[in-house]
Amino acid sequence: MNFPLSGVRILDLTQILAGPYCTLILADLGAEVIKVERTEGGDAARGTPPHYFEGESAYFLAMNRNKKSVTLNLESEKGKEIFYRLVRVADVAVSNLRPGVIEKLKVDYDTLKGINPRIISCVISGYGQTGPCKNYPAFDLIVQARGGIMSYTGEPGRPPVRMGTPMGDLAGGVFAAHGIMAALYQREKTGTGQKIDISLLDCQISLMIYRGQNYLVAGEIAQPVGSGHISVHPHGAFKTKSFDVVIDLNTQKVFEGFCRKIGRDDLCQNPKFTSREKRYENREELYRDFHQIFLQKTGEEWLTLLEEEFPIAPINTVDKALNNPQILIRNMVPEIDYGTRKLKILGNPIKMSGIEKEVFKAPPKLGEHNAEILQDLLNYSPEDVMNFKRDGNI
Amino acid sequence: MNFPLSGVRILDLTQILAGPYCTLILADLGAEVIKVERTEGGDAARGTPPHYFEGESAYFLAMNRNKKSVTLNLESEKGKEIFYRLVRVADVAVSNLRPGVIEKLKVDYDTLKGINPRIISCVISGYGQTGPCKNYPAFDLIVQARGGIMSYTGEPGRPPVRMGTPMGDLAGGVFAAHGIMAALYQREKTGTGQKIDISLLDCQISLMIYRGQNYLVAGEIAQPVGSGHISVHPHGAFKTKSFDVVIDLNTQKVFEGFCRKIGRDDLCQNPKFTSREKRYENREELYRDFHQIFLQKTGEEWLTLLEEEFPIAPINTVDKALNNPQILIRNMVPEIDYGTRKLKILGNPIKMSGIEKEVFKAPPKLGEHNAEILQDLLNYSPEDVMNFKRDGNI
Repeated sequence: MNFPLSGVRILDLTQILAGPYCTLILADLGAEVIKVERTEGGDAARGTPPHYFEGESAYFLAMNRNKKSVTLNLESEKGKEIFYRLVRVADVAVSNLRPGVIEKLKVDYDTLKGINPRIISCVISGYGQTGPCKNYPAFDLIVQARGGIMSYTGEPGRPPVRMGTPMGDLAGGVFAAHGIMAALYQREKTGTGQKIDISLLDCQISLMIYRGQNYLVAGEIAQPVGSGHISVHPHGAFKTKSFDVVIDLNTQKVFEGFCRKIGRDDLCQNPKFTSREKRYENREELYRDFHQIFLQKTGEEWLTLLEEEFPIAPINTVDKALNNPQILIRNMVPEIDYGTRKLKILGNPIKMSGIEKEVFKAPPKLGEHNAEILQDLLNYSPEDVMNFKRDGNI
Repeated sequence: MNFPLSGVRILDLTQILAGPYCTLILADLGAEVIKVERTEGGDAARGTPPHYFEGESAYFLAMNRNKKSVTLNLESEKGKEIFYRLVRVADVAVSNLRPGVIEKLKVDYDTLKGINPRIISCVISGYGQTGPCKNYPAFDLIVQARGGIMSYTGEPGRPPVRMGTPMGDLAGGVFAAHGIMAALYQREKTGTGQKIDISLLDCQISLMIYRGQNYLVAGEIAQPVGSGHISVHPHGAFKTKSFDVVIDLNTQKVFEGFCRKIGRDDLCQNPKFTSREKRYENREELYRDFHQIFLQKTGEEWLTLLEEEFPIAPINTVDKALNNPQILIRNMVPEIDYGTRKLKILGNPIKMSGIEKEVFKAPPKLGEHNAEILQDLLNYSPEDVMNFKRDGNI
């Protein structure tokens, strides 16, 4: 089967979240991703509580399908030799190490380039490989906070909250995948690899988009908006007779259509609400009216009346989100074989004709592919592999 | 200058946010992005309040640097002819239209492929081009809510809040950019283009990672965590004598080192806190202690003592985030020429050797490149262009 990244071999020295999410994207697109894991315990995500399936953490299972696993002690002479042999036949090496550690382990770009000039090296770290904070430790929450977005997530006047999903880490993973694919494309033209340096903090800055630009243009410091929006009204969550719903009436046309549909022409004819600017000026009254309106029916009734034509939705809990027929029909909750059991996982959001028939292979057990990679790919003998094992190199 | 995507020409029919963020990523990597805009007003982002610079919205300026702009009335015969001539010389066409509209405008993949078999077509929409909800309207908040992440963003027992930055839209943009680059790479091997179908809702499902997997493995329905974490303790925001700080002590080693550094060896020796599991069990007491501790110094004092060694950070407002020396030194707030003035913008988080010398060109005025594209690229005469203008085709 030919997937978009078929034939691309990636050495993945990352663990936990940002790096594995990057290589998950590449693996789903067809790259051969080889996780290079510590001999003791491997990727720390494997041990993350609280939920396990067949002895493996749900946290790990969430983002390691379609990958292979080899164990390697990179601090041993032999372990490094094996790694360098892998570098010789690989296209990409990804790690999430701070500057000093990369050099200490001798897996820096200059070393790898000496072994394979076509290698693309991508390092994902909290602050990047340059600058005064390059050696500071950082994890998801730290960059959500330092990067600015946390300061305007949550309710006005309430304690700060983070984005519920770890966007500090995930953003690093997605931009690293961009860099790697751009380098792969460029290598088709130039024949040489390159070095990519992704900082989780930089990624947060990019994700601020207009809230950041508003400061740069007008000095405005973004404030928390709850479920609201600075320039769209009405926008946000509303209580109904049953569950809460959200609406996002972001154009004049949508606002007017919505009012008419719910039998409240008076609202869009009300001179206080006839333009975006006026709705902003009179937003207190606007929201008072809308809160009243939504209390008159159940969530189900509002959705039945409106969801096909207008931007309205329930605030789905995870179970409801993952049982949505729209999601199931788009194969976003595929079921895979895992040992003798079936395991459901989250799907690949990149739907393209090159992968019309999606394939999801089980996340690997630690070192599951040691023999395959060392013997079949690197031509070590079965005896070599046994000795590596005995000596703690793999 | 050779950037990773130099020589790639992208027709960008998108507006507002998800699509423009996708093509922003590709433009920063060196692609030639041609915004194809409505003759009347163009990209709706150009009119988005409340802040403007030289007559252009900050919202628009935030994500349209490094792009060109042509105006085109795709509903006119001549406008479509011009568009198809562009398709003939382009590599990628991106749009954010619902299924019916694409066919009505005749910019669907099958039509474009008939004109240029190498074309890569990417459509970004709320729910994708298939499934029972494919025609439903959706914007950022709608997919944040329906996709599940909103249900666990915010404080327990408080009203639902959204991620402060529009991750519903932005995620669609980033995964679309992945699909496009994967297709470009594959086309180097196969010579043919393909079709990419990105659903904002699918992207939200992918971003749930372990919170989604916890449900699929154990039926756990994610609950809001404020600034906390389900399996890391202590993790979150703490008041100090001045501003709030966050910490994320996610391993045993980090927890112990932290306690020692602040002169509280007793905490890591306390049998209630000696392992991840015990800290989870006794988290009430743990947080009580940590809240007390942080109140004893100012935020500045805590940061000076800890930030070089431990995951701790201030919750930066946008101004502080954008004036951070680490951010400035990594060129994440570059200054560009805009007319006769200087404009600061948010930088490109993908740092790679192929773009060591970053270039940022001013976001285009509406139709700024009409003559360049129509005359120089498509070989229309200046008279043609004048007539197109007169007839409302451009």
